[in-house]
Amino acid sequence: MSDLVHLTNARLAHGDQLISGDLWLDPKTGVFLPPPNPAPSTSAIDLQDRIVAPGFLDLQINGAYGFDFSEDSASNHNGRSYTERYRDVRRKLITTGTTSFLPTMTSQLPERYHQNLPFLGPSNSRDPFNGSESLGAHCEGPFFAHNKMGVHLPDAIHASGTTSEPKRVLDTFGASNLLNPDDGSRLGSPKSIPSHVRMITIAPERPGALDTIKQLSQAGIIMSIGHTAANYQQARAGIDAGATMITHLYNQMNGHHHREPGPLGILGGATDVNSQNETRILEQAMDADVNLSHRPYFGLIADGNHVHPASVLLAHLIHPDGLVLVTDALLLLGGQDGTIDWLTRRLTKKGVSVTLEGTDIIAGSCVTLLQCLNNFRRWTGASIPVALQAVTSRPAAVLGLSHRKGTLRAGADADFVVLKEESVPGQSTSDMVVDQVWKFGVKVYDQSSP
Amino acid sequence: MSDLVHLTNARLAHGDQLISGDLWLDPKTGVFLPPPNPAPSTSAIDLQDRIVAPGFLDLQINGAYGFDFSEDSASNHNGRSYTERYRDVRRKLITTGTTSFLPTMTSQLPERYHQNLPFLGPSNSRDPFNGSESLGAHCEGPFFAHNKMGVHLPDAIHASGTTSEPKRVLDTFGASNLLNPDDGSRLGSPKSIPSHVRMITIAPERPGALDTIKQLSQAGIIMSIGHTAANYQQARAGIDAGATMITHLYNQMNGHHHREPGPLGILGGATDVNSQNETRILEQAMDADVNLSHRPYFGLIADGNHVHPASVLLAHLIHPDGLVLVTDALLLLGGQDGTIDWLTRRLTKKGVSVTLEGTDIIAGSCVTLLQCLNNFRRWTGASIPVALQAVTSRPAAVLGLSHRKGTLRAGADADFVVLKEESVPGQSTSDMVVDQVWKFGVKVYDQSSP
Repeated sequence: MSDLVHLTNARLAHGDQLISGDLWLDPKTGVFLPPPNPAPSTSAIDLQDRIVAPGFLDLQINGAYGFDFSEDSASNHNGRSYTERYRDVRRKLITTGTTSFLPTMTSQLPERYHQNLPFLGPSNSRDPFNGSESLGAHCEGPFFAHNKMGVHLPDAIHASGTTSEPKRVLDTFGASNLLNPDDGSRLGSPKSIPSHVRMITIAPERPGALDTIKQLSQAGIIMSIGHTAANYQQARAGIDAGATMITHLYNQMNGHHHREPGPLGILGGATDVNSQNETRILEQAMDADVNLSHRPYFGLIADGNHVHPASVLLAHLIHPDGLVLVTDALLLLGGQDGTIDWLTRRLTKKGVSVTLEGTDIIAGSCVTLLQCLNNFRRWTGASIPVALQAVTSRPAAVLGLSHRKGTLRAGADADFVVLKEESVPGQSTSDMVVDQVWKFGVKVYDQSSP
Repeated sequence: MSDLVHLTNARLAHGDQLISGDLWLDPKTGVFLPPPNPAPSTSAIDLQDRIVAPGFLDLQINGAYGFDFSEDSASNHNGRSYTERYRDVRRKLITTGTTSFLPTMTSQLPERYHQNLPFLGPSNSRDPFNGSESLGAHCEGPFFAHNKMGVHLPDAIHASGTTSEPKRVLDTFGASNLLNPDDGSRLGSPKSIPSHVRMITIAPERPGALDTIKQLSQAGIIMSIGHTAANYQQARAGIDAGATMITHLYNQMNGHHHREPGPLGILGGATDVNSQNETRILEQAMDADVNLSHRPYFGLIADGNHVHPASVLLAHLIHPDGLVLVTDALLLLGGQDGTIDWLTRRLTKKGVSVTLEGTDIIAGSCVTLLQCLNNFRRWTGASIPVALQAVTSRPAAVLGLSHRKGTLRAGADADFVVLKEESVPGQSTSDMVVDQVWKFGVKVYDQSSP
């Protein structure tokens, strides 16, 4: 029993509260333990009232530290293979508090998916020194509305055609990347388990998309609607078909209009209006009954560039239990201001802004999830534990991993972050700063000895 | 003591709850009483578990039953004077449950304000048979954004110019209509009491408007921003200057954009972003700290025509404590489908839709506050007492009359409505129906003997 780790004098983020207490974990199995009884004679680590939060989960991150998950995995860079560079990035990423993530591929041609996705699946390793853990890839695209592609590769979106029927989607990503080979890579098997891909962002209004959403969600893949020209009804249809999330709310989708609420409208729940006329609500609107059971999760980029702070606050007020902070970070995370190559194009970073070179078109972010979290707290007034939920328990719930990730409960993976509060001149809200990061019960980063 | 009225076996709308109990009132003084001790030998009226709600308050109603508050008060119609027709309308209006209201003038030329406003001030009568009680006029316009005039009289808005400095506003409405003559009709008097006008809707971005908002709100007039082209910052400035309400949220104002949230954005509270650039949030956005203390009330037209049910739900989720249902009803309330004269133009009613003849331009509503209330319940899932707050205690709070109106508490005016629930085919939510209306402690309407 002397191999157990005992942390004491911590403020533990449990639900919407910070609770003073102790934490026990087993570095051999990498999980949290209930308090042993009798307690072993382990000398406890005194956290001096610092905050312990579950490790952060980022459901949408395209790259960082000069590396893009979508880059050519067949090429070496500076003598280092894709595998090596991918691991380097994970080891840096974990120092920001993000202990798990979905490596996110932007829209690519089919060959690139076939080539890269096998690298990006769930880590299947409990080596704490492998860096941040992939929980599977997020394919953001290419089945988008052609007028909502943002900075995604136009060739890839055009190559995806205008429909999204299941066969087209499977062929594009490669069936074995979506479905576990044990199932014969077929849809409809009752026991199918997702393979390398954990999440897909798709526009629900493309013909065939609802079938694809239904079949892939039943196969265990998280379907998220985004980069979409869907109106309110079409967004609703996506959720009704099995999508459980909206990708980066507000960005690359129709805005809210009071008589055509668009995707924002579905955050409140379902009001079953059968309106064919977008400028006038039909009389059957009068018969609508609200159904609060169909409310999707939604990603939100609180980088101070994609979305106005007041819009972040509105989203939080509308559906606090659905809000998931994501970085949508690109390879410029951790980089300097300036212009660099990005796949086939070039990006300019200036402060928190990343744009396609020579344009005002926003191209992902360059912030950490912790920065988003600090912004979110300031802009919403959310308490520390409530804000933490948006990067811990809630993204874990999106993935169906609440038992294992995003929690400090006994039995879950002992991935956690030790945080301290720092006051910032000119701000009334303190920032949180990462002091330590632990992965599978082992301390892998300490700010005092980086 | 035998003159007291005792109602028993009622479900009383108190705050966000229905509480079974008794109600005592004095028809002589017209107020609710605490339960007398000892109880007098009055035979109690058994309400058989029906709901008792405070009488409804409508802060925005332009007319009803063929009468428009803005019509020429010097002319007789069918041999009846403006005063007689105004009283006729109030006596019909009270049967809908609306026991108090702000008679609302649409944008008119100055002469019409000078002529009509003296008729529309607070009733100053406790005669229960005078019908629904005016709590003062609401001047909706003419100081609007010229591109947000809706169906208001263009001549009136053009005549108002493009600025809204205090002198121009006083001259337009007539100083004695705004300020009590006892003050010498001057602004800045510490004891000024509003005269005939209780509320003004104004666009805050017009030059001089902030000064006017500041001075008139200090003089006790409720200032509401609306018919406005204000962006987020300009809407905020209106609230900071002293406006406490937004007129019919969503309608005749800029929509929400995620990087320029517009008036909707200020419902969440203040996030102090000093953005000059409407398409990119400046870096100081990162330093914004939310201030939840500056949240305006807002009117909302839940008629099934002005606003999509999902947008009603969003507004309720964003700021439930600010939501005030208003009818924005025109003279077509209580009328038949068809086309009729309206001031200098013609209106077409078809179901719940009222439009300028031959166009799709929405022109007010033709529904009762009770219909809005029933819609609101269905679209939001709000409980009966919570929904009732949006037509009782909350509009009373807007007017600073919480002690006297919109409540069943002892000491308040005994204005109340007896409601029953009726199931509606095809709806999972019941509708409420008005059974009785009491004004100043006297039953003035009984559905069973209308």
